[in-house]
Amino acid sequence: MPTNVVIVGGGFGGMMCAKAMRRTSANITLVDKRNFHLFQPLLYQVATGGLSPANIAAPLRNIFRHQRNVQVLMGTVDSFDKASSCVILEDGTRLPFDYLILATGSTHHYFGRDAEWQSVAPGLKTIEDATIIRRRVLTAFEKAERSHDPLEIARLLTFVIVGGGPTGVEMAGSIAELSKQTMKKDFRSINPTNARVLLVENSKLVLDRYHESLSIQAGKDLRTMGVELMNETRLSEIFPKHVVVIQNGQPRTIETETVIWAAGVKASPLGKKLAEAYDMPTLLDRGGRVQVGEQCSIAEHPNIFVIGDLANFPTQDGESLPGVAPVAIQQGSYVGKLLNATIAGRKSNQPFKYWDKGNMATIGRSHAVVESGKIRLTGKLAWLTWLLIHILYLARFENRILVVFQWFWNYVTRNRTARLITGSEERPH
Amino acid sequence: MPTNVVIVGGGFGGMMCAKAMRRTSANITLVDKRNFHLFQPLLYQVATGGLSPANIAAPLRNIFRHQRNVQVLMGTVDSFDKASSCVILEDGTRLPFDYLILATGSTHHYFGRDAEWQSVAPGLKTIEDATIIRRRVLTAFEKAERSHDPLEIARLLTFVIVGGGPTGVEMAGSIAELSKQTMKKDFRSINPTNARVLLVENSKLVLDRYHESLSIQAGKDLRTMGVELMNETRLSEIFPKHVVVIQNGQPRTIETETVIWAAGVKASPLGKKLAEAYDMPTLLDRGGRVQVGEQCSIAEHPNIFVIGDLANFPTQDGESLPGVAPVAIQQGSYVGKLLNATIAGRKSNQPFKYWDKGNMATIGRSHAVVESGKIRLTGKLAWLTWLLIHILYLARFENRILVVFQWFWNYVTRNRTARLITGSEERPH
Repeated sequence: MPTNVVIVGGGFGGMMCAKAMRRTSANITLVDKRNFHLFQPLLYQVATGGLSPANIAAPLRNIFRHQRNVQVLMGTVDSFDKASSCVILEDGTRLPFDYLILATGSTHHYFGRDAEWQSVAPGLKTIEDATIIRRRVLTAFEKAERSHDPLEIARLLTFVIVGGGPTGVEMAGSIAELSKQTMKKDFRSINPTNARVLLVENSKLVLDRYHESLSIQAGKDLRTMGVELMNETRLSEIFPKHVVVIQNGQPRTIETETVIWAAGVKASPLGKKLAEAYDMPTLLDRGGRVQVGEQCSIAEHPNIFVIGDLANFPTQDGESLPGVAPVAIQQGSYVGKLLNATIAGRKSNQPFKYWDKGNMATIGRSHAVVESGKIRLTGKLAWLTWLLIHILYLARFENRILVVFQWFWNYVTRNRTARLITGSEERPH
Repeated sequence: MPTNVVIVGGGFGGMMCAKAMRRTSANITLVDKRNFHLFQPLLYQVATGGLSPANIAAPLRNIFRHQRNVQVLMGTVDSFDKASSCVILEDGTRLPFDYLILATGSTHHYFGRDAEWQSVAPGLKTIEDATIIRRRVLTAFEKAERSHDPLEIARLLTFVIVGGGPTGVEMAGSIAELSKQTMKKDFRSINPTNARVLLVENSKLVLDRYHESLSIQAGKDLRTMGVELMNETRLSEIFPKHVVVIQNGQPRTIETETVIWAAGVKASPLGKKLAEAYDMPTLLDRGGRVQVGEQCSIAEHPNIFVIGDLANFPTQDGESLPGVAPVAIQQGSYVGKLLNATIAGRKSNQPFKYWDKGNMATIGRSHAVVESGKIRLTGKLAWLTWLLIHILYLARFENRILVVFQWFWNYVTRNRTARLITGSEERPH
């Protein structure tokens, strides 16, 4: 009987794990609720019309077309059966496993306001999120062009981005570029360069996990691009036509119809299902992440691995590894290689070691910040580094050339050709 | 007071009309319910994962960015006010006009079964239609891969296309290529090359408006690609898991979950609103098209023009011009030039003359049929002609290079990289 490996999630972690096992004799089943792998770091480009969804998504079946030991199933995990070591899908299908890898990542977290804020302040995790944001941002400009009320126009042209991490910074920079560069000649009644882009951030600086000099530079770059930074500011309420923020302890009202959420993520609910099925109430941390040991497996079950954003992997200083793509990629490869050895009968005690190559975030056309060890870059050089690394990574996908081409095209023409308002939510009746 | 020109519809006709008026002193308002112009002839490529929506759509604002006499408004026409010569939008906005051009095209027609069939058998007119069809076709393969019931698998892998005109032929050819070429190595449980693609056509031959030799060749090409032709067959009923067709007077049941409508179109409902507002009960023909005179204007109102699929333009032999892109393009340019002359004070009596350059339809990778006057082409030469003409036309769009590049890429790799299942309708729960 061949060994059964079940991987849940086709993101960076799950995909890399399956790829690392290409030469093993195991049967690998890769379950994902979507039929594609998504290159999430570029999702903000889809949300602002710079790229098409297909530019940053690759069908999972295509990725594993030639890897005959992988079967891709589109489906959702409903529960686990501990007694028989099975994953149970939404229709009752049972997938028996000898080894299980959970890599379902994270989702948005609205600090207890999920039910109210999810629909009014979309986050940016899926293709659908990106097209919703694209539709709302572009529709705001369309409504403003048709309005004759100066107050309404000002409200429609005010965009509030909540959260000053990499996603918030990228979104703010992109919307500023969209309004002040790409679309500046597109309207006749309104002046789109008057659009206000507000970046609301709790802490004193944007990108506060970066070295302070980079955070300061990123803030300067954003201001140069026309983004208004609202640091030490907390979102308090969202209403249909305005939001309330708390700044210096004082509530302040901002008139806006477009709020974009980039503030918080929480672990996928699959961890909770695992903890329940295995009757391990202490398995999860406060954020819902699954606590794993040095080999990325859970306590007492060395055949169950959790990787990427869903995992809480402890570091030597008592913290845990951040929820970023490189961690997921390296953990996926690590677990794949570990299983290759185990299945071949070579027991390995090698623990997972994260190689932190550094962080980077792009701010806009030719601005970025990069830190790697003691190297810190800003401005054009950082942007070229960011571009090069993304191109090299995307080079693993078959549609790489198109993305690079479209980027280059947008860069030269300052254009965004994917500015389509699609879907039905806010189409005029 | 400058002259006010209102154009409703940013398709081929409306866009070309506005472009032709780039040097006139008139104020042109272009109203469309979408924010983009769509290159509809390639929509079937989006429906089968070959191209992304943004590859064949260009934002209208972008097209008219430098044409300062055009204001684009995203909106829907609600009615007309004859007394004051105004177009009234859905929110009550009034657009006064000296000249009005209606170019809102056509929509699907289910021969009296619209209410029942529209949602179960989507047609192919909009970006949303294309992504719905893409989702249903790809989801059928995903469900089949997860099924263990041979009858269910056979049903899921049966695709029924209704209508053997150019759209039906293109869809059938594309789905056959998708299953028998692109995805042939993508599955582990099912064999996608077993998929059945049925093309249901009322008349004796597909493409029955073409010269008989081309229709016969197109039928042969489709059969070679694995499409099953059901000629002289009429769709009678659509049920969730099967359809009933009438063949030789006998009902026949076909098990399928995917039906695609390519059979009938009817004129946009805007014609009816015009006839009502102007109290002209005989304005429309039986198909709802607006009857126009030799200058594309309606009786008694030489300042109201109707062009493209919405118009019934009589030909010398008592027929009317077909609802194809070249007619809309030429009528748009004609009306634009006519208005240029009129507004400049040079009254023109020149009637519209359609220059029929011929017809063409593509059947699949390197097969097409082309007829132009006495020239008739099939096979690779026809396909290259089709490709060249589409490239030349797309060359007017800024995203032309990407489309050509993606085509070429797909052609070389036999791949379709935009095979994304997006939207929520049929995602697993």
